[in-house]
Amino acid sequence: MDARNPLNIGAAARAMSNFGFQHLRVVNPYDVAFQGARSAVGAAEVLARAEKYETVAEAIADCSLVVGTTAIGHRDLQHSLQRLEAGAPLIRAHLASGGGACALLFGSEKFGLSNKDMSHCHWLMHIPTREEHFSMNLGQAVAVCLYELMRDPGAMPESKQGTPASSAEVERITETLLTALRASGYPKLNSSDSFEGAVRRLVRRLDLQTGDAEFLLGMLRQMVWKMKTKE
Amino acid sequence: MDARNPLNIGAAARAMSNFGFQHLRVVNPYDVAFQGARSAVGAAEVLARAEKYETVAEAIADCSLVVGTTAIGHRDLQHSLQRLEAGAPLIRAHLASGGGACALLFGSEKFGLSNKDMSHCHWLMHIPTREEHFSMNLGQAVAVCLYELMRDPGAMPESKQGTPASSAEVERITETLLTALRASGYPKLNSSDSFEGAVRRLVRRLDLQTGDAEFLLGMLRQMVWKMKTKE
Repeated sequence: MDARNPLNIGAAARAMSNFGFQHLRVVNPYDVAFQGARSAVGAAEVLARAEKYETVAEAIADCSLVVGTTAIGHRDLQHSLQRLEAGAPLIRAHLASGGGACALLFGSEKFGLSNKDMSHCHWLMHIPTREEHFSMNLGQAVAVCLYELMRDPGAMPESKQGTPASSAEVERITETLLTALRASGYPKLNSSDSFEGAVRRLVRRLDLQTGDAEFLLGMLRQMVWKMKTKE
Repeated sequence: MDARNPLNIGAAARAMSNFGFQHLRVVNPYDVAFQGARSAVGAAEVLARAEKYETVAEAIADCSLVVGTTAIGHRDLQHSLQRLEAGAPLIRAHLASGGGACALLFGSEKFGLSNKDMSHCHWLMHIPTREEHFSMNLGQAVAVCLYELMRDPGAMPESKQGTPASSAEVERITETLLTALRASGYPKLNSSDSFEGAVRRLVRRLDLQTGDAEFLLGMLRQMVWKMKTKE
């Protein structure tokens, strides 16, 4: 990372800490920026371990894969360029194969990586932003790249919390709702034979959980009691 | 978004602009924060259109799906909670079905959404951070969520730029490299019958593109010329 802004160094470190990446290497930072970054929320450990280098070549010397990040469209690229979604699996495959360390190289927010920086890269990667506004905040770009690297493509939606209400519970609600409607003098109740069926279907569409079914049944019973008491 | 920090409002707006999301609604911002945000790089359009609301209820009134974002682990949740990778497809399915607008609700960086804010949500979503450091910068959290919503799971790795070199080109390089080695007096050349095969396989492992093959051939021919001239 070639960064002159303490906010950006700190933000990058924080995203690394959030997503479990430990080795921050900073190329040629202004000392004031590097010191200023050390207050970044929750990233103290990453920043304390951060290493300073004079050149990109030294920073990546022990890495067997070097991937540069770039915004699309701002120059003619001499490299193969991957969208982030497609590049991340290549990086994971490299790491999984025991192929050695991978460096992810970020340029300054304003100018990006220089052509010389890029010449150290095996290939480049870009975040799929809108063409009309491709320049991202550096800390946000780091967060998005690291998230993509550790996201779990197999994560499945969690089902609703709790247990679905049984048919008996759902039917008790239906009956109690119909009782409440009768007690309230709800007009449609007698005007249509199919009304009871419509109420039954409505209650089933609510897709109630056991706890919620009991909660709702208690409310309805209270209302029934109140209405019958007033009669 | 319930944000008190102009940097956070601006960062959120910039990520929205990067990823093509247009409708920023800010609940009860300090005016100074809202004004301060208006300088965020490249996000002028999103900020100019941003709407201010007094309450979460008003901000989400026209949305048919409201998803709250939360860091894991900091309170007992009363809602169904999805990992971002699993939640995003649910949101995309809602939008694709013509089910109406979806609101993604972010709390303040420091306190997150209040229990009252969350009670307006259909379900909650969290970014899969480390348990030891789950608190993300707000702008980074917005960027990661919006990236996940518009990422293309079908994006394929791009093949190397250019055309792979033909076998004839690769063989020309092999022959020229062998000629260069002979001219240089390379010692192993005559000591092993299999050496020529080893060089041939090495050149093929380079997986050369047409342009690079020509580039390399020119270098080798120049070296051969120089070495033969010196004889």
